[in-house]
Amino acid sequence: MAKVLCVLYDDPITGYPKTYARDDLPKITHYPGGQSLPTPKAIDFTPGVLLGSVSGELGLRKYLEANGHTLVVTSDKDGPDSVFERELVDADVVISQPFWPAYLTPERFAKAKNLKMALTAGIGSDHVDLQSAIDRKITVAEVTYCNSISVAEHVVMMILSLVRNYLPSHEWAKKGGWNIADCVEHAYDLEAMHVGTVAAGRIGLAVLRRLAPFDVKLHYNDRHRLPESVEKELNLTWHANPEEMYPHCDVVTLNCPLHPETEHMINEETLKLFKRGAYIVNTARGKLCDRDAVARALESGQLAGYAGDVWFPQPAPKDHPWRSMPYNGMTPHISGTTLTAQARYAAGTREILECFFEGRPIRDEYLIVEGGHLAGTGAHSYSAGNATGGSAEAEKFKKAV
Amino acid sequence: MAKVLCVLYDDPITGYPKTYARDDLPKITHYPGGQSLPTPKAIDFTPGVLLGSVSGELGLRKYLEANGHTLVVTSDKDGPDSVFERELVDADVVISQPFWPAYLTPERFAKAKNLKMALTAGIGSDHVDLQSAIDRKITVAEVTYCNSISVAEHVVMMILSLVRNYLPSHEWAKKGGWNIADCVEHAYDLEAMHVGTVAAGRIGLAVLRRLAPFDVKLHYNDRHRLPESVEKELNLTWHANPEEMYPHCDVVTLNCPLHPETEHMINEETLKLFKRGAYIVNTARGKLCDRDAVARALESGQLAGYAGDVWFPQPAPKDHPWRSMPYNGMTPHISGTTLTAQARYAAGTREILECFFEGRPIRDEYLIVEGGHLAGTGAHSYSAGNATGGSAEAEKFKKAV
Repeated sequence: MAKVLCVLYDDPITGYPKTYARDDLPKITHYPGGQSLPTPKAIDFTPGVLLGSVSGELGLRKYLEANGHTLVVTSDKDGPDSVFERELVDADVVISQPFWPAYLTPERFAKAKNLKMALTAGIGSDHVDLQSAIDRKITVAEVTYCNSISVAEHVVMMILSLVRNYLPSHEWAKKGGWNIADCVEHAYDLEAMHVGTVAAGRIGLAVLRRLAPFDVKLHYNDRHRLPESVEKELNLTWHANPEEMYPHCDVVTLNCPLHPETEHMINEETLKLFKRGAYIVNTARGKLCDRDAVARALESGQLAGYAGDVWFPQPAPKDHPWRSMPYNGMTPHISGTTLTAQARYAAGTREILECFFEGRPIRDEYLIVEGGHLAGTGAHSYSAGNATGGSAEAEKFKKAV
Repeated sequence: MAKVLCVLYDDPITGYPKTYARDDLPKITHYPGGQSLPTPKAIDFTPGVLLGSVSGELGLRKYLEANGHTLVVTSDKDGPDSVFERELVDADVVISQPFWPAYLTPERFAKAKNLKMALTAGIGSDHVDLQSAIDRKITVAEVTYCNSISVAEHVVMMILSLVRNYLPSHEWAKKGGWNIADCVEHAYDLEAMHVGTVAAGRIGLAVLRRLAPFDVKLHYNDRHRLPESVEKELNLTWHANPEEMYPHCDVVTLNCPLHPETEHMINEETLKLFKRGAYIVNTARGKLCDRDAVARALESGQLAGYAGDVWFPQPAPKDHPWRSMPYNGMTPHISGTTLTAQARYAAGTREILECFFEGRPIRDEYLIVEGGHLAGTGAHSYSAGNATGGSAEAEKFKKAV
């Protein structure tokens, strides 16, 4: 019988709404391209309710306990005195989400003697030191595609919002003003701008598809070139590397995974390659950008706006400069955890656990590391090595709260 | 020699940026569908600078004065002591914008003995009492298509922002929190939702085109049915009237003109036809909605969100309930006055004035009223009668400032 340790974000401090805003979730039948939705044998939750927070327990308790397993759920994840670090020592499975990541560092792997699987209820396993997982033959899996479209929608929303100066304009409306010139002296149309994505995987391609009818000029960079038919359909310009693409773009969006080669790809030097007044939207990972270089570029006007929902570390400290830098459109890490996405990743987590406990193979597209090697999606998108190490820094947030 | 009276919004109170955010505007060659851009003989402004505010003067002073005309520019538009009402008595041409409308009521028409043309630097001439213009054979013209795409972009931005709960989530990031559950307990994906537009003219159709790749189900209502090829391409469901469409939709966007038949089309009774938790986005005209019925629907949860940039009157009083009602995504009236749009409507205003002064015909698509009849675009989209009368109410804002 196994011990499952599940790290989830805190429940709402503003209290649950008496009822949820809507009565149901719109239904999809499959993901774009045909991949099937999660296929657990059963679920014990109602799609549309909060599942990703502590009280939601990803809808797993009934299933796990009925099968004799133990479930420990906590939001307390950082520092040596945390519940996570205490419970880790005899956990068989760790479940965590990118929005509230339980950083699995080499030191923590060394303490987790029973660990057999690190499962990400979401997409993006960079909070897990993949090299340690490889060395220790621990399975790393995530729920591929569960929230890719959710994130792509967030990207398009943030691009429009930055270019059109939505957030400052809404502030004027709230505070009783009618200062049109103040709103629009920084507002443009997106039409005819050049927009480029770094990486055109599931998210990047979904962003390109959604932007095409805005009559923008679309660019992309990716190790894997898209089929010619897609390039033609969307009128895409491919670039061999990001640095070659930046000077062409009014808007750049980052949709690549974080690994040692992509860490700090946006920095003091590469920002000089951008047009003055360009916009960046990053819903991929905070560490893709040099934090202070981005803030300085907004102060100087080299960038006209920066938005995204990923930070380093997570949660971001209260004094993180991205919270207050000019023309930022930041949110906490939420794009992939809408109520819609939660229903899918909770079902996918259940599917992976069923496979794990019943000795059935986990879907190849869910695998990052298995049997001591990068596997499945991991072999396509990740590289070995460590871009993690956020726990000590995240602890600062915990202490400040 | 003529007197041109131009009502524009105030300059920024926060001060101009030292330089504009960007060095140029992206260029388009024509509007969707092929209509040509404005074709004045010349322009005396740099595209990309503020033209719609008092100091911008729509770039008209040099041209008008070189031809012996007088230009009076003011933002003081409401009440009997306003500059507008004082200068109106001998003005030949009045220019105003929907964002900061100079309400031309029957009483004001009666005072304007010399008036020959009321020109809207933008789209939407409902601030002009068309019946008076018809009776007095005064030309009413606007710059058709100049900012239709600007508004369509605003609509898509606001739909995504409401459904994904962007504005409250950004607030959490600003104030130092990491309350993911508080952000997402009201956040959904747009994918697979049903979205309907009331009217599918230039703006409505542009919205439909932009939403299609989001894999939503699209609905529309319009007096003029779209070509079958467009309905098929975008997989549209047509409804004979708005009331029949509402129950199908998760999101409804209003993209029709204001005239007596559309005034208060969203009211206590019609709101009951919506799904619980539906969203409304209205960038058309404030008076399409019963102000207090909308606020009550948000309080009760019948609506999950309301966004838009149109109010009644304009400017909206400081205590207008739409500034503070829950889950609102309002902005001042700005969607059609981005710096991009300003360059187009300033050029279009110049084109219309050149035609007027040189005795050449004004483009048919710019005309609303001519020679005592609804004409051109006016005959398609407007009806005679009066849905105006906002000056006395807007005066309350002026007095409160």
